Amino acid sequence: MVKFAVLGCGRIGRMHAINLARHPRAELAWVFDVADSAAASVAEATGAKQARDAEEALAASDVDAVLIASSTNTHLDLLERAVEAGKAVLCEKPIDLDLAKVDACWGRIKERNPTIMTGFNRRFDPTFRALRDRLQQGEIGKLEQVVITSRDPGPPPVAYIEVSGGLFRDMTIHDFDMARYLMGEIVSVFAVGANLVEPAIKSAGDIDAAMIILESADGALCHINNSRRCTYGYDQRIEAFGELGMLQAANQRPSSIQAWGSKATEAKDPVLDFFIERYTPAYLAEIDHFVDCCERGVTPIAGYREGREALRLADAALESLQTGKKVALG
Amino acid sequence: MVKFAVLGCGRIGRMHAINLARHPRAELAWVFDVADSAAASVAEATGAKQARDAEEALAASDVDAVLIASSTNTHLDLLERAVEAGKAVLCEKPIDLDLAKVDACWGRIKERNPTIMTGFNRRFDPTFRALRDRLQQGEIGKLEQVVITSRDPGPPPVAYIEVSGGLFRDMTIHDFDMARYLMGEIVSVFAVGANLVEPAIKSAGDIDAAMIILESADGALCHINNSRRCTYGYDQRIEAFGELGMLQAANQRPSSIQAWGSKATEAKDPVLDFFIERYTPAYLAEIDHFVDCCERGVTPIAGYREGREALRLADAALESLQTGKKVALG
Amino acid sequence: MVKFAVLGCGRIGRMHAINLARHPRAELAWVFDVADSAAASVAEATGAKQARDAEEALAASDVDAVLIASSTNTHLDLLERAVEAGKAVLCEKPIDLDLAKVDACWGRIKERNPTIMTGFNRRFDPTFRALRDRLQQGEIGKLEQVVITSRDPGPPPVAYIEVSGGLFRDMTIHDFDMARYLMGEIVSVFAVGANLVEPAIKSAGDIDAAMIILESADGALCHINNSRRCTYGYDQRIEAFGELGMLQAANQRPSSIQAWGSKATEAKDPVLDFFIERYTPAYLAEIDHFVDCCERGVTPIAGYREGREALRLADAALESLQTGKKVALG
Amino acid sequence: MVKFAVLGCGRIGRMHAINLARHPRAELAWVFDVADSAAASVAEATGAKQARDAEEALAASDVDAVLIASSTNTHLDLLERAVEAGKAVLCEKPIDLDLAKVDACWGRIKERNPTIMTGFNRRFDPTFRALRDRLQQGEIGKLEQVVITSRDPGPPPVAYIEVSGGLFRDMTIHDFDMARYLMGEIVSVFAVGANLVEPAIKSAGDIDAAMIILESADGALCHINNSRRCTYGYDQRIEAFGELGMLQAANQRPSSIQAWGSKATEAKDPVLDFFIERYTPAYLAEIDHFVDCCERGVTPIAGYREGREALRLADAALESLQTGKKVALG
Repeated sequence: MVKFAVLGCGRIGRMHAINLARHPRAELAWVFDVADSAAASVAEATGAKQARDAEEALAASDVDAVLIASSTNTHLDLLERAVEAGKAVLCEKPIDLDLAKVDACWGRIKERNPTIMTGFNRRFDPTFRALRDRLQQGEIGKLEQVVITSRDPGPPPVAYIEVSGGLFRDMTIHDFDMARYLMGEIVSVFAVGANLVEPAIKSAGDIDAAMIILESADGALCHINNSRRCTYGYDQRIEAFGELGMLQAANQRPSSIQAWGSKATEAKDPVLDFFIERYTPAYLAEIDHFVDCCERGVTPIAGYREGREALRLADAALESLQTGKKVALG
Repeated sequence: MVKFAVLGCGRIGRMHAINLARHPRAELAWVFDVADSAAASVAEATGAKQARDAEEALAASDVDAVLIASSTNTHLDLLERAVEAGKAVLCEKPIDLDLAKVDACWGRIKERNPTIMTGFNRRFDPTFRALRDRLQQGEIGKLEQVVITSRDPGPPPVAYIEVSGGLFRDMTIHDFDMARYLMGEIVSVFAVGANLVEPAIKSAGDIDAAMIILESADGALCHINNSRRCTYGYDQRIEAFGELGMLQAANQRPSSIQAWGSKATEAKDPVLDFFIERYTPAYLAEIDHFVDCCERGVTPIAGYREGREALRLADAALESLQTGKKVALG
Repeated sequence: MVKFAVLGCGRIGRMHAINLARHPRAELAWVFDVADSAAASVAEATGAKQARDAEEALAASDVDAVLIASSTNTHLDLLERAVEAGKAVLCEKPIDLDLAKVDACWGRIKERNPTIMTGFNRRFDPTFRALRDRLQQGEIGKLEQVVITSRDPGPPPVAYIEVSGGLFRDMTIHDFDMARYLMGEIVSVFAVGANLVEPAIKSAGDIDAAMIILESADGALCHINNSRRCTYGYDQRIEAFGELGMLQAANQRPSSIQAWGSKATEAKDPVLDFFIERYTPAYLAEIDHFVDCCERGVTPIAGYREGREALRLADAALESLQTGKKVALG
Repeated sequence: MVKFAVLGCGRIGRMHAINLARHPRAELAWVFDVADSAAASVAEATGAKQARDAEEALAASDVDAVLIASSTNTHLDLLERAVEAGKAVLCEKPIDLDLAKVDACWGRIKERNPTIMTGFNRRFDPTFRALRDRLQQGEIGKLEQVVITSRDPGPPPVAYIEVSGGLFRDMTIHDFDMARYLMGEIVSVFAVGANLVEPAIKSAGDIDAAMIILESADGALCHINNSRRCTYGYDQRIEAFGELGMLQAANQRPSSIQAWGSKATEAKDPVLDFFIERYTPAYLAEIDHFVDCCERGVTPIAGYREGREALRLADAALESLQTGKKVALG
């Protein structure tokens, strides 16, 4: 039984807390949020204790592992303190917006050989995981091209945009990680961006649509397209093209109904909207895997380094956007 | 080069005439219709001569083969006269509405060993033909169950219904033939009917929807469903279920566009509507095959017997509808 | 909080027990099975007490509701004793194989106005439920035809077949209930059967494939096809055809991957196999609904009468199979 | 009736010649090829006269229009001579590999106001045309992103590669034109390439796979991916994403069969392979449109300028490939 503290009780923190409370090998001991009422509500729903501050939860003897789901600017500090307190850490993405800080933190904690996992939930999605397994089993031979389509149903509030680190670090970071998950190391990044959705996002200095091309160390090519708006739901698709064929991960829906009428035929439901709905089984599998990491010493499928590398790709994309040049990664 | 007369220049006769006029191994010599203007229009479009009456076309020395597309009540008489004149015959379905007359006619013409083909166009559809080929190649092993879905976009005029011989002889007859094409001989028929679409059809003594079950000599089962109304086009599907799997023949559309929006996703076009649009390649292949029969002595894929047997199944379905009993076929 | 006893700890009983143990408004107090080890295993997995016999569980004061998942021949007796003990009952299908006994039992218990639910899990499937909702909202207008495809991945052991009551009472009973769920009362049944799958089933006096036609009181038609074998999984589809269009409930799969290669394109996974996998959310929703019935006096979506009526349709199908006649229901 | 000469009787020239010979408003008068036997074979199949040289065909009084399907290096010269001879011209793509020559030629011929059409057949594909129509009708609102997937079934001979002008000018040129057809003018190009398919292509100095990003004058983004190998056929798809939803043009197949078995379900046929098979209706519509241009003065949907602009994009892509920079177009 792994005992948990959850720091941050917003939408995703609450979901994790409930998943932990129901997990047969986990126990949710403590929750904390800077907003008292958020933490109180989760405490009530799960039976966990509400901590006065993060420190109380980090210091508690009945805590083996800390799940960090607070705002991004607090991630790295909490992570470091949790490691210093000897806890395992599952930290939501991005671990930070500043690569230098991420590297400096690692310099301070690496000798402890900490168990750290970055919350790249998509690696645990049954469909994407099956896609990767089938690639590795050679079903389509050598991987040549990947197309990742990743569109949010709608833009977040501008207040969120302003602290998000921008589209690449906030949203594309998942796609960068997916590219690495499927293709291995990335050696170049090119990106263009556009403001097509929400003028306030432009005013905030960010883009709301993007197209990106990556080259992998193996010579494969990857395209990512992003938008902050998608009327038909949370568009999450992958297409992997190899010497022997193609594997596609299609969108998913709440029912398998298809409607036929005078205007349209075989019309399916809008796709699952939004991440908590689309990635329900992924979040459960993520917790399951992290409990394995804590209990059995399994190496996290997405460790600290994955969080760092995805951020590095985001930084490179931003540089490419600004310079109009392909950015090579050392 | 096979020289043709086309008798009957309605919608389907006109289509056949144009197909013949363009066929590299056929020549359309004569056309006739009881409505002068219909024949004149087809003559003009194809360069064929317009006959004063059927007799002129049947007697013409520049006619090897006669395509009968006139009204059903004239089929059998024209067919017999054409055979007597030594012509090959391609006769639209049904060859007649009266099984006794069909058998009597055969008794009179069989010694001539005539080349006769019944216009069961669906046997020539590339998809259904591929389905049958794949069944015969054993792709799904022994055939166990067949489901035939066959729905017209809308009901014909009541005037047509009144001389049609009823749903089974007019519409289901294609499906009965398809069952025989895929499954071989049929040994029992059960049918229910309903009036769901058009009250005038009920007044005319006919049904406008039906469900049928057939048993084949091999012990396989077949379901047919029919309706005289289908808002999304001409619904023409087959599902063949065997010990190793299933083969489906899906509907077809004018384009491969799929639309995604806030109400529906992957929405395709309505399906091809109506038979001339859906079975364009089938009608071309049918003519091609019949030219082969005339030129090279190939045995018609759908001969006089196929016309007779499908009618016999229609009669059995009508008996079953009236008695509520499964009708065994000798 | 509704306190439960589960009687019968086979595959489905075990699943229900685990679902109850995890349900936020249910408490699993007792389990029993004639096989000690089965009950012990479920007791261990759920923390429930293991009863010495059914009587102990039925008499327990910490039991509000009894879930009957024992062998069919024990259902009715346990149901009656549970009702007499004042418990609510959720009974797996079929409630019995003998319609007379079902009616006699009802005669004895009806005055207690018992809360009884029959385990027609498919009514709770999110897709089928959405299908019914959309029918009732008029999306395709008046319902005209329904096609239910229902094929098991493989035949059960012959020992099971021998006590199953036959294909119609054991397997088709779900489809009969689905027909009633979508179409209302059924007024006639016609059925044919075949032995296509397993010779031992024939030796046991049962069929392993069937096709059925139903007529509803509203004049709509329904086709059901069944097989005890399906190589691609548990084939569970519905097609509802109305005056304005069609709604289909398609099969479901463990992932949304589609494979493209030199032999096949857009190839999807085999479909979910078997009922526990396919109907996972349905079983959860079923329990949820039953808890509502117990706690809040909600009327069960599938009551005792639904169990009785589906059995009556199965009996009529058997009569039709034997007589070759359409059987009218009073 | 428009009288034609066809110059070049290779695979595509032969197809055009046969289409012209069957066209109701066209007459194929002359054919020519540097290989006598190729021209003789087409002449025999179509009844056209075989010219001794291109000059004879260009000078013939019974020629209104010239279809140029010879090797690329002869296109521009033949086009210019045909225009000087007062003929209308339908020229296969690319009109030339050298943008300067293309512009110089235009300088010499433009005052004649010639009727020239570039053979961008995909503009005439019923599906792509419907896609464009629906975009223009506003079905998905403002167009934001386009993804064009375009993969050849297999690489051409290296001898062809060597004179092809490279992947961008030979293959991607169709996709560049499609981007312009859907999105209007393009203002920037970025491209990466790879050698993944055929070492001999690398030795010949060309790439065999590419990914490209375009920006349109309207601020929309476009991604193109190409490969010289695709095991499942000729992969030709478009995805257009707008503020209200998405339209996809899916691949097309020879039949609508879907196969279900123990390994895969809903498996469709490989897609149509290769361009003559995939674009059969497009080539027919292209000829039809060109005949309209000749007879009725309709402006070609793809004129000389379209040929020139697609080449300019190919040149920009090559520059981007070599420099790693986004290339702005004036």
